[in-house]
Amino acid sequence: MTWEKNVRRVVPYVAGEQPNKTGMVKLNTNECPYPPAPGVKAILQELDREALRLYPDTDAVGLVEALADHYGLEPEQIFVGVGSDDVLAMSYLTFFHSGRPILFPDVTYSFYDVWAKLFGIPYKTCALDENWHIRPKDYVGSNGGVIFPNPNAPTGLAESLDTVEQIVGANRDVVVIVDEAYVDFGAESALPLLKKYDNLLVVQTFSKSRAMAGVRIGFAMGSKKLIRFLKDVKFSFNSYTMNYPAQKLGVEAVKDDAYFRSITQKVMDTRTRAKEEFRRLGFSFPDSMANFLFVTHERIPAAELFTALRKENIYVRHWDKPRIDNYLRITIGTDEEMDKLFTFLKKYLESN
Amino acid sequence: MTWEKNVRRVVPYVAGEQPNKTGMVKLNTNECPYPPAPGVKAILQELDREALRLYPDTDAVGLVEALADHYGLEPEQIFVGVGSDDVLAMSYLTFFHSGRPILFPDVTYSFYDVWAKLFGIPYKTCALDENWHIRPKDYVGSNGGVIFPNPNAPTGLAESLDTVEQIVGANRDVVVIVDEAYVDFGAESALPLLKKYDNLLVVQTFSKSRAMAGVRIGFAMGSKKLIRFLKDVKFSFNSYTMNYPAQKLGVEAVKDDAYFRSITQKVMDTRTRAKEEFRRLGFSFPDSMANFLFVTHERIPAAELFTALRKENIYVRHWDKPRIDNYLRITIGTDEEMDKLFTFLKKYLESN
Repeated sequence: MTWEKNVRRVVPYVAGEQPNKTGMVKLNTNECPYPPAPGVKAILQELDREALRLYPDTDAVGLVEALADHYGLEPEQIFVGVGSDDVLAMSYLTFFHSGRPILFPDVTYSFYDVWAKLFGIPYKTCALDENWHIRPKDYVGSNGGVIFPNPNAPTGLAESLDTVEQIVGANRDVVVIVDEAYVDFGAESALPLLKKYDNLLVVQTFSKSRAMAGVRIGFAMGSKKLIRFLKDVKFSFNSYTMNYPAQKLGVEAVKDDAYFRSITQKVMDTRTRAKEEFRRLGFSFPDSMANFLFVTHERIPAAELFTALRKENIYVRHWDKPRIDNYLRITIGTDEEMDKLFTFLKKYLESN
Repeated sequence: MTWEKNVRRVVPYVAGEQPNKTGMVKLNTNECPYPPAPGVKAILQELDREALRLYPDTDAVGLVEALADHYGLEPEQIFVGVGSDDVLAMSYLTFFHSGRPILFPDVTYSFYDVWAKLFGIPYKTCALDENWHIRPKDYVGSNGGVIFPNPNAPTGLAESLDTVEQIVGANRDVVVIVDEAYVDFGAESALPLLKKYDNLLVVQTFSKSRAMAGVRIGFAMGSKKLIRFLKDVKFSFNSYTMNYPAQKLGVEAVKDDAYFRSITQKVMDTRTRAKEEFRRLGFSFPDSMANFLFVTHERIPAAELFTALRKENIYVRHWDKPRIDNYLRITIGTDEEMDKLFTFLKKYLESN
């Protein structure tokens, strides 16, 4: 098969497993434990079959306007994509084009180095300090751009607006991307900095706090110029990506702010309770501001706990990577799901 | 703003305009004039709000199985993406990796050279003959891969299975992509060749014959090896692209084969009638097997007709490009829409 030698070979990214078993407790991919806004069901029922035959609006005007309205921005400051992974990949292609290495933390979202390798963008990782915090001075000096999540994953730790501003301000010659996938669970958004810095791109998603991972909506907010460049690159790939149902459902999810606040508050309340329980059971963890906790036990290795939980149909995330291999990332589920988790952990720790 | 010098600049692709005016006749982007299968409405109404909070199945197993079943293939022979543009772009990245120029016709789908430029893939165009047909011998000899639509766009002309096989067989050391976006309106698919050639990739879409441009589903069919390589590249970009509603709606559209046959037949019947009408009015055109006609008038320049039609809220497509600037590409609409078009053309041609 001679054609094979002309094919691009990549090491495929392995996403968190997506088990689908009855009775399982799924705490492994940071989904919201509550359904999206009730209005979303009504939108599904009203969706016009006739409208599906037409190409969707390439600019997703309705959704962009709803977001602009919600965040107090101009529509020209917003870019939407098929999940924040799509938005981030397009941002890499658009903004990390200097040939100099881009910078991101050593412990962070697993896709950052994947995209860099894929697009041939050089990169350098900067070690988080011993408390898992970013050291702003690591991000000073010549580089090709900066990206970091705030709160960070998988630690859940949030950086202050002051730390974020130091990094953005020290890098006016490149673009700084703050990936705020988890910002709505109690951290401070960098959005207010958009007034001052036109090299800042803030990326958010509907997959966590808006309970819509299944609909695939991510978005970026920044200066009009930044967004224009991003759109130009995106449209040179594929003009029509976000489908008509997603555009309609997204608007509804943004509009129902009371529901949004209620489910993020519920997650935060359960997180507070979960922190106490974990502490009581001998776990320690960074003080997460996200919808997950990054826990390590004083006695039992993470890999062992991971396997024991899996046998009980309780799915959490474990990485066999330097610095983090003795930790588990556990999504905040419903109170009932967390009860099942803690009941099992108590029993397991007593007998092991 | 010094960051701007580190940004990738592209010439953005300009898609066909998507007007949305009451009373307009939209014959410019080759959408199906009929809605998708009736069952699609029921699926929309049944869609589970709860399911939207979870990440969609990365492998779109339900949809892949429905397609495999329909086309008599193994599920491992099918790759799905967010519209055929997504599938084709991923195929470029995966298969056109030799460094040698890829080949495609000089008159063809406008995205082929856009992706080549974007991904830094060298390319060479091969002139269609004077009757707009592909000359298979142009595609013999060292190259980095071949892509062509069958039927071709914007001519609508179909090539025989024999022509397709000559090209696939002469290029066993690279991948040959046959873009069959319009195949369901009377042309012959290259699918039977999959049994013989593992370097053939056949790409189709739900946007035309399945009346679902708004849902964004495209798919590729090929040998298991080819599909495996494609998936590896796709997953290294973004694991979750096709949303949950699209996966569900797609299955329903594939299942209702009787409806599918009825709407494609209606389009073909209207096309037969339209060919007669155009001929009667002094137009000539290649004998299209697609859901559009590529027409030129014996007397009135295409650009003039384009403008006149636009004033009447009748939207068709015109390109200011060599060889095709005196042609209009006109989508086959409903009989009523075509009546409006012909009524206006008759009047216009009488008085000009």
